[in-house]
Amino acid sequence: MIDINSALAALDWNKEPKGLYEPIAYTLETGGKRIRPTLALTAAEAIINGGLINGDAIDHVLPAALALEVFHNFTLLHDDVMDRAEVRRGRPTVHAKWNDNTAILSGDQMLIEAYKLLAQVPADKVAGTLKLFNEMATGVCEGQQYDMDFEHMSQVTIPDYMQMIEKKTSVLLAYAMRIGGYIAGANEAEQEALYQYGLHIGLAFQIQDDILDVYGDPKTFGKAIGGDICANKKTFLLLSALENADAESKAELYQWLLVTDRNEEKIAAITNIYTRLGVREAGEAVMEEHTAQALAQLDKLPQNDATERLRKLAEQLATRNK
Amino acid sequence: MIDINSALAALDWNKEPKGLYEPIAYTLETGGKRIRPTLALTAAEAIINGGLINGDAIDHVLPAALALEVFHNFTLLHDDVMDRAEVRRGRPTVHAKWNDNTAILSGDQMLIEAYKLLAQVPADKVAGTLKLFNEMATGVCEGQQYDMDFEHMSQVTIPDYMQMIEKKTSVLLAYAMRIGGYIAGANEAEQEALYQYGLHIGLAFQIQDDILDVYGDPKTFGKAIGGDICANKKTFLLLSALENADAESKAELYQWLLVTDRNEEKIAAITNIYTRLGVREAGEAVMEEHTAQALAQLDKLPQNDATERLRKLAEQLATRNK
Repeated sequence: MIDINSALAALDWNKEPKGLYEPIAYTLETGGKRIRPTLALTAAEAIINGGLINGDAIDHVLPAALALEVFHNFTLLHDDVMDRAEVRRGRPTVHAKWNDNTAILSGDQMLIEAYKLLAQVPADKVAGTLKLFNEMATGVCEGQQYDMDFEHMSQVTIPDYMQMIEKKTSVLLAYAMRIGGYIAGANEAEQEALYQYGLHIGLAFQIQDDILDVYGDPKTFGKAIGGDICANKKTFLLLSALENADAESKAELYQWLLVTDRNEEKIAAITNIYTRLGVREAGEAVMEEHTAQALAQLDKLPQNDATERLRKLAEQLATRNK
Repeated sequence: MIDINSALAALDWNKEPKGLYEPIAYTLETGGKRIRPTLALTAAEAIINGGLINGDAIDHVLPAALALEVFHNFTLLHDDVMDRAEVRRGRPTVHAKWNDNTAILSGDQMLIEAYKLLAQVPADKVAGTLKLFNEMATGVCEGQQYDMDFEHMSQVTIPDYMQMIEKKTSVLLAYAMRIGGYIAGANEAEQEALYQYGLHIGLAFQIQDDILDVYGDPKTFGKAIGGDICANKKTFLLLSALENADAESKAELYQWLLVTDRNEEKIAAITNIYTRLGVREAGEAVMEEHTAQALAQLDKLPQNDATERLRKLAEQLATRNK
């Protein structure tokens, strides 16, 4: 199996002007799960001769896999500016460590670097990969815009929310799968199955994220518990609670949404309401449904080591605690 | 001749989410000289059957020509955030009309839209065009970083400055020419001549811009005269003046650079020093040299209507007053 971190570390950012490239190196070295490039490579393996890995063929997918990871980190960099987030993965964000202008421009260059990596896939696959990648990137930006719009909207429904997270989170996983398969020579039906697998694990992943923000173990979660609650973020849990609450619980919830100090008390009270209304269980049910849908896609693919790993990944994501 | 403004106006931005696409439509409708797509199309015409325009062949270049214009406007959008510029082409900039987050995200989407247009060139040219476009985009971002770095550097030489404007301004014109030629089937020597033409008119264009900021006619220039002087911008004129001044003029110049109120007085005084030191003439000499170098490139190309137009364009840029 290709080591994504080594492949990323081999990219050369020791270039001039340092002010442009150092923040890119800094962003990429902070780690993360590397789930997107792993999906692209595993999708390719699932297609190529039944999981019996052909070195060369996988090498053809690697530039696109790295492009997806660079793109993902570009979105984090710009999102952190927009959200005024000061810390990411335990380190200061780029705009906090340098400044906003650096974060904007180095982010722009990261997006261009993603396209430079894309240009390295086999020549006969460049046009097709570029088209898929552009669709993905558009979806992600649209998702981020909907997410920002939601902050100012009083009425957001659960279907609105699902559409938003499909774009903001799932589309990138879905296209990682499709691009990996496409470059490896998957036919249209296989590409569609790979895409749907990515889409459904993405939805499950995001809802699990919403649940962990409230019910996660602070020791393993990596972020402060209750961050979404403090920020009044319209998560699956909050929208579900608002949808299912009786008049009394709804009033109590709205009252807490107006509280901007007393964060610990607010987290405890809203968590209490969530627990009473059973929104965690509602979220887990939706999550399990999407996990099942993801797993069902795998039956349409060659059965081999790689599809087995995709099966395990979907199950792990649904039960992860960090 | 293809009408660039009509082709740009035909792009559909009436899409959801409006918050993402309206600022893109707004940015592209504010006009400008459309010089980059014009260069790409004219370069292609110069190559294709001696200026006898083949409709289809030019159609193949159009998506790339539009991609260059969309990319250029993306850089203006993000640069305006970084420079805190409130007005562009007589209208509020995107971050002034909406907000910073909108300007960042819609700018990101514009960059992606440029790549979507690129993906529309003929399939056998996509990989090559993408590679050239990525080199161009990298140069422009590096140039912008150097420009930002220069603000905080006490020692910037004229060669440093020329390298910066080559990246920030000229590379885009140079690659517009090369990409237009490449898609039209130019050989390597022709592509290089087209590229060098663009590079040299770009350098001449930027130095003329520096001169017009001080000596332009306020009625035709479109921007306030003396903006660079007020901002202490390290232009060709300022760097030239600092390089050529005797001790007394240098002291006088440094003293004025410290003045942050009394803008009109400052503009008048520094213009006076420039005139005394003859830096306008020094700039015009460098500009003429680059114009001559641009014109010399045209001798290496087929001689036809299109090369004739490129000849006139180089001469006009050198004598423009807006």
